[in-house]
Amino acid sequence: MSNYDIKDISLAPSGHVKIDWVRHNMPLLNGLEEEFRKTRPFEGVRISLSVHLEAKTAYLCLVLAAGGAQMSVTGSNVLSTQDDVAAALADDGLSVFAVHGESEESYARHIEMCLEHKPNIIIDDGGDLVGMLHTKRPDLAEDVWGGCEETTTGVIRLKAMEAEGILKFPMVAVNDADCKHLFDNRYGTGQSVWDSIMRNTNLIVAAKTVVVVGYGWCGRGIAMRADALGARVIVTEVNPVKAIEARMDGYSVMTMAEAAPLGDIFVSATGCCKTITVEHMLTMKDGAILTNAGHFNCEVDMEALEKAAVSKHETRANIMGYELSNGKLVNVIAEGRLVNIAAADGHPAEIMDMSFAVQALSAMYIKEHYKELENRVIDVSGEIDERVARRKLDAWGIQIDTLTPEQEEYLHSWDL
Amino acid sequence: MSNYDIKDISLAPSGHVKIDWVRHNMPLLNGLEEEFRKTRPFEGVRISLSVHLEAKTAYLCLVLAAGGAQMSVTGSNVLSTQDDVAAALADDGLSVFAVHGESEESYARHIEMCLEHKPNIIIDDGGDLVGMLHTKRPDLAEDVWGGCEETTTGVIRLKAMEAEGILKFPMVAVNDADCKHLFDNRYGTGQSVWDSIMRNTNLIVAAKTVVVVGYGWCGRGIAMRADALGARVIVTEVNPVKAIEARMDGYSVMTMAEAAPLGDIFVSATGCCKTITVEHMLTMKDGAILTNAGHFNCEVDMEALEKAAVSKHETRANIMGYELSNGKLVNVIAEGRLVNIAAADGHPAEIMDMSFAVQALSAMYIKEHYKELENRVIDVSGEIDERVARRKLDAWGIQIDTLTPEQEEYLHSWDL
Amino acid sequence: MSNYDIKDISLAPSGHVKIDWVRHNMPLLNGLEEEFRKTRPFEGVRISLSVHLEAKTAYLCLVLAAGGAQMSVTGSNVLSTQDDVAAALADDGLSVFAVHGESEESYARHIEMCLEHKPNIIIDDGGDLVGMLHTKRPDLAEDVWGGCEETTTGVIRLKAMEAEGILKFPMVAVNDADCKHLFDNRYGTGQSVWDSIMRNTNLIVAAKTVVVVGYGWCGRGIAMRADALGARVIVTEVNPVKAIEARMDGYSVMTMAEAAPLGDIFVSATGCCKTITVEHMLTMKDGAILTNAGHFNCEVDMEALEKAAVSKHETRANIMGYELSNGKLVNVIAEGRLVNIAAADGHPAEIMDMSFAVQALSAMYIKEHYKELENRVIDVSGEIDERVARRKLDAWGIQIDTLTPEQEEYLHSWDL
Amino acid sequence: MSNYDIKDISLAPSGHVKIDWVRHNMPLLNGLEEEFRKTRPFEGVRISLSVHLEAKTAYLCLVLAAGGAQMSVTGSNVLSTQDDVAAALADDGLSVFAVHGESEESYARHIEMCLEHKPNIIIDDGGDLVGMLHTKRPDLAEDVWGGCEETTTGVIRLKAMEAEGILKFPMVAVNDADCKHLFDNRYGTGQSVWDSIMRNTNLIVAAKTVVVVGYGWCGRGIAMRADALGARVIVTEVNPVKAIEARMDGYSVMTMAEAAPLGDIFVSATGCCKTITVEHMLTMKDGAILTNAGHFNCEVDMEALEKAAVSKHETRANIMGYELSNGKLVNVIAEGRLVNIAAADGHPAEIMDMSFAVQALSAMYIKEHYKELENRVIDVSGEIDERVARRKLDAWGIQIDTLTPEQEEYLHSWDL
Repeated sequence: MSNYDIKDISLAPSGHVKIDWVRHNMPLLNGLEEEFRKTRPFEGVRISLSVHLEAKTAYLCLVLAAGGAQMSVTGSNVLSTQDDVAAALADDGLSVFAVHGESEESYARHIEMCLEHKPNIIIDDGGDLVGMLHTKRPDLAEDVWGGCEETTTGVIRLKAMEAEGILKFPMVAVNDADCKHLFDNRYGTGQSVWDSIMRNTNLIVAAKTVVVVGYGWCGRGIAMRADALGARVIVTEVNPVKAIEARMDGYSVMTMAEAAPLGDIFVSATGCCKTITVEHMLTMKDGAILTNAGHFNCEVDMEALEKAAVSKHETRANIMGYELSNGKLVNVIAEGRLVNIAAADGHPAEIMDMSFAVQALSAMYIKEHYKELENRVIDVSGEIDERVARRKLDAWGIQIDTLTPEQEEYLHSWDL
Repeated sequence: MSNYDIKDISLAPSGHVKIDWVRHNMPLLNGLEEEFRKTRPFEGVRISLSVHLEAKTAYLCLVLAAGGAQMSVTGSNVLSTQDDVAAALADDGLSVFAVHGESEESYARHIEMCLEHKPNIIIDDGGDLVGMLHTKRPDLAEDVWGGCEETTTGVIRLKAMEAEGILKFPMVAVNDADCKHLFDNRYGTGQSVWDSIMRNTNLIVAAKTVVVVGYGWCGRGIAMRADALGARVIVTEVNPVKAIEARMDGYSVMTMAEAAPLGDIFVSATGCCKTITVEHMLTMKDGAILTNAGHFNCEVDMEALEKAAVSKHETRANIMGYELSNGKLVNVIAEGRLVNIAAADGHPAEIMDMSFAVQALSAMYIKEHYKELENRVIDVSGEIDERVARRKLDAWGIQIDTLTPEQEEYLHSWDL
Repeated sequence: MSNYDIKDISLAPSGHVKIDWVRHNMPLLNGLEEEFRKTRPFEGVRISLSVHLEAKTAYLCLVLAAGGAQMSVTGSNVLSTQDDVAAALADDGLSVFAVHGESEESYARHIEMCLEHKPNIIIDDGGDLVGMLHTKRPDLAEDVWGGCEETTTGVIRLKAMEAEGILKFPMVAVNDADCKHLFDNRYGTGQSVWDSIMRNTNLIVAAKTVVVVGYGWCGRGIAMRADALGARVIVTEVNPVKAIEARMDGYSVMTMAEAAPLGDIFVSATGCCKTITVEHMLTMKDGAILTNAGHFNCEVDMEALEKAAVSKHETRANIMGYELSNGKLVNVIAEGRLVNIAAADGHPAEIMDMSFAVQALSAMYIKEHYKELENRVIDVSGEIDERVARRKLDAWGIQIDTLTPEQEEYLHSWDL
Repeated sequence: MSNYDIKDISLAPSGHVKIDWVRHNMPLLNGLEEEFRKTRPFEGVRISLSVHLEAKTAYLCLVLAAGGAQMSVTGSNVLSTQDDVAAALADDGLSVFAVHGESEESYARHIEMCLEHKPNIIIDDGGDLVGMLHTKRPDLAEDVWGGCEETTTGVIRLKAMEAEGILKFPMVAVNDADCKHLFDNRYGTGQSVWDSIMRNTNLIVAAKTVVVVGYGWCGRGIAMRADALGARVIVTEVNPVKAIEARMDGYSVMTMAEAAPLGDIFVSATGCCKTITVEHMLTMKDGAILTNAGHFNCEVDMEALEKAAVSKHETRANIMGYELSNGKLVNVIAEGRLVNIAAADGHPAEIMDMSFAVQALSAMYIKEHYKELENRVIDVSGEIDERVARRKLDAWGIQIDTLTPEQEEYLHSWDL
């Protein structure tokens, strides 16, 4: 029996259309769905999931449910939930607790409702589900075999918990799988951030100066596409090797204090906090556009901005203009939340297909191996990467070469 | 006194926000608005305008009105009108006749209502206003001093009229100004087409095979950005020199018959008709995505597709899936109409700023020179291009070099 | 009977190997050679040719000779002649007058010797042959039917002559053919300039700041490849529209005075003179690298530099380091002459194949039409472009589309 | 007293010019040279070095000698030695044993002569010095404290030795330092391979189909630049994740059997053997160009080609054309040896500056720590990477950001 707290169940038809669209564009999940339907690997397993609740996530939920899982679902950010998609999932009989634009209190309550499902496996995105369980509901930990974490940010938090010795079950770092971060963080973020900025501003990217904060996998995807769209790119970094890479890739590299007066559009993608401060903003051009592509809305220092601003008003849908004490305006998209998810549709379907295939197989890994695992952050076994990658090539119809025995031998010899 | 036939005047506040946003991002029009407010060059002049009715067009109308023009405004495509923007213009006292999604009959009636204004100057986009005047309301021609045409398509039609000797007044080919087609057609279309495709499909462009039909200025902008987003690009052409350019730019070149089975996404940008036929569609991959970036919705042969399809259903918002007789599906965005305008927000503001600065200055040119002009298609004087370009560089704060007298002399000598 | 003034006829074998290599990579000339051998269109026609004398030029000479022409050949720049190639041509029985590194006096004498052949047709590159004939040997003009000019620079000079009314025969502006400048100036110069700079400096282009002077077809090819190799590109221009294009293409645009202190490598490609002056050099970084990609060695102001320099010494083969009065060094490649020809092998073979196919067909055009032509600069007929382009597509095995009758009609109608 | 076996000591002046040029373009080595001159860290230390003997390597030798090292130097490939550079080193008093184009026997003898120096530290490139010592001169091992290996190939060989338990001293995997492989293998190889192919063929890269074998750091540099030069790129791989990356980067991916008939230019960069076989060659286009960018000349199967070819002849300097049994020709540059080193000048100076700074600091690391090290392949300590990267940024004059204490704390907390 379905159990839900959502905006409006009557929105389900629109949600079903969205889910059908992604289903037609996620061949790896298609394959797993078909397998799971036969093998029912999650028969009777309770899974609680907290991931940005839009169509691709919904399809992952349905695939797990096809494998027998009892799903309890919540969102991962108050702006990223799509109410019609939540309705469609509820309509399909899953437990769903999420409403677009809800308050932080409501969001926290929904996470707790999702946990009351007493999960065996947790699928988390950013670490809120795991964090809440450890702080508010440690009583539920005994049912938990382990879980999977989707993001760089979440993995950082889990490693901090592991370092403090308080992590209560094993967590697979899905983010660190090659088939996740090499594609999702780079090509996924690279496209979806610019999709969002373009649709929300209707401004030209060519000839703009774009400042990318952080040159990790997300940052380089964002920089690569900004360059490709005709912008001049400035990268700021704290790591000197990454800084050199950015420079060799043709970008300017400098401190944020130097970059702030030069940029037209700023994108922060660091997993850290306060990368763009009010002090920086006060030196920016009038009308500068600020966006965040990291998990939490603290990269652009919104808290300080809200205090420092003289006034604010909506300058375009999803964009708030803040007037600063110097009379200039800064425009912030989606309240400084993940610009590609909170003000657009998130990563492209084919990208999430790879990430979620890793998720589904990692959940299986937890189920099969949890008794042997320590309460630590676990690397996804290379075998999962290999399986996902082979399936992706198959989905494209691409054949690759195989080493001959002679080549294998050559690679293990030294006396040529 | 305002006179309008629009969706709902109460939508005006949202339209005003949109217009304010573009006003902050169209510095050339800002400058003209300021000048016009002082010099009132269009005092008492009646202008009828038919251009895709969204915020940037609205701001052009307001700039002309600031110069004293009596504006009568209609749209240029039944899907490209934004009702809130139309309401804002009416709210500002302009005459407006356009409703989003109206029927072809209603669209034709609105064009005629726009003409009843008895224009001295016509600003047209695609040629419908001029066409209607020549066929249905030739009586109005005597008041018309001349007009301006925005697009490649419209210029082709006007030249056909000129060749037949029936054009009743001079028409400036705004499209052919360097400051229009070199930027609007290339960087504008290049960005806005992909903005639209990405937002409407939520699919990854990287690793896709994109077929671009036509390698004119629009086509090369579309191809350039597809490549930049990670796609493999195939170009089809009828002009051998353009075909070689496409190949030298790193793209594959072949016939549409060869390309049809290979493409994932098709974009037609030719100004011609039936570039993608049902015969082509029958050889495409299941789920292929078809879009049009040319002015009229006959590039993808929608008429034939509607007849040939076994069934159709919405596969995502703005996308219709047509099932073909071979069981495969083709997905058409925005009914085969201009994908960047009918299913997104059109060109970026800064691009239209240049195009519309040429428009406004060309309208002044008509006013000042119409008595000397023949009833032909007129080239924009180089002087307008020079003025717009200099203003654009100023808006960016860019200085460029000037030839020294010695260099000037060198360039005019032969006996070195 | 052969008649020559070259370095050393015994160098011929090496020259023959070079010519054989390009012969295998110039399919359009292969086709013409075969045709000419049968039809002998130049039987008894005297052709004097002054083009950079390396393997591709030599093959053009052989193709014309295969058509019956009596060839008299000289170079087009004292550093661009390859002595082994000159020897191979002499060995094949052509008249050749050119020596690598000869003095300006010797160069002038060789041009005159080449003219003494009493040409019916002149093939010129930069205008020296035509210039010399008009100033020193006007007596020879009566035999001349007309000629062909390869470069932007030469066309500028010819138009100056035409404007003064002194041009004594028609000259085809081969440079202005689409199949020449769209490919030779852009992709040819783009590659060959960087080939030369990389081989002569062994420095990394990535992360360098490259200043490109002039954003014509050559300049945009050079900028495109600098960007592609990882450089940050600054463009300087005098034309505001081209300046905006450069900026929209993602480059920085500024004056040379602003760019001089920022650049690591400078490339001038304007057809003008003194684009980089000693005043600029005095503000450059120590070790800045200066190169010229325009026809004449006056773009970088070498004359003034030779006077202003405190000292000079070879810093690497083909590079002269000039110490300035401020103690800094500037490095000039190939004495400020065409960097891609004077210090490398010039344009790639396939590019010159197109340019020289236009040359050969233009020479035929002169022969067939000279009686009807005025003494002006003549556009290559579109028919030649079409023929060359179709042959190029054939050589690649590429098919393109053709307009259907319905499409042809559509493109000529206005009442849709 | 100098001890040498080189081509001709009188070539030294030309070598000195070359070394001076690179000295002006290797700021990191400049800094180390200055430090070493003061601190003399290698006073009395015997170093034997086998690296491609051209100007940049020579400068590394001089820097180590400035630190007090007694240098014994040989080359790393029979075609990569530049005789004038070898002469300059000998002229400066170093022991040098290498001759361009020498036989394999002579090459082996020179390696042995280099070892007779009784090195304390070995600097190797590809593993020949270490291999020879283990097989022919194990007696010398007792003097050896350890060594440094420059390449992927050498590291593979060393790991094979380590796995067999026969490695007699610790070897630092310089290749695996971020400041080496991220830059040298990617941007260095990316540029130098195309520098070499362009200068040796004088063919256009744009519009060609380039097949890159292997998508490791070298392969992606080569593919990136081929794409940038206008080619269509095909990648072949054995690793499925890398294959997907190549596809997402916009390239075609397929097996070599599929790619062979499509390619115009082939570049192998795998560290493996026989990646391009005679079977593949028999399906290639007439005139296909084959090159190797891996350390050993067995990637293109030259041994089998020499046997299978019907005939061979030089088709251009550094290029041998092999006629196959099917009548077609394949062109191999530089006998299938490292195309960028054997037929050009190797990596750009600034790239080798980083790689060689790691080498020099790794040699110091060996000297300071060898007593604590096991006889294994050693990772370069992160501290060396950090030092080299900071110096590189300093050399560019680039400042980067530093984490604030608040940010540091944030990155180590989980309960946000």
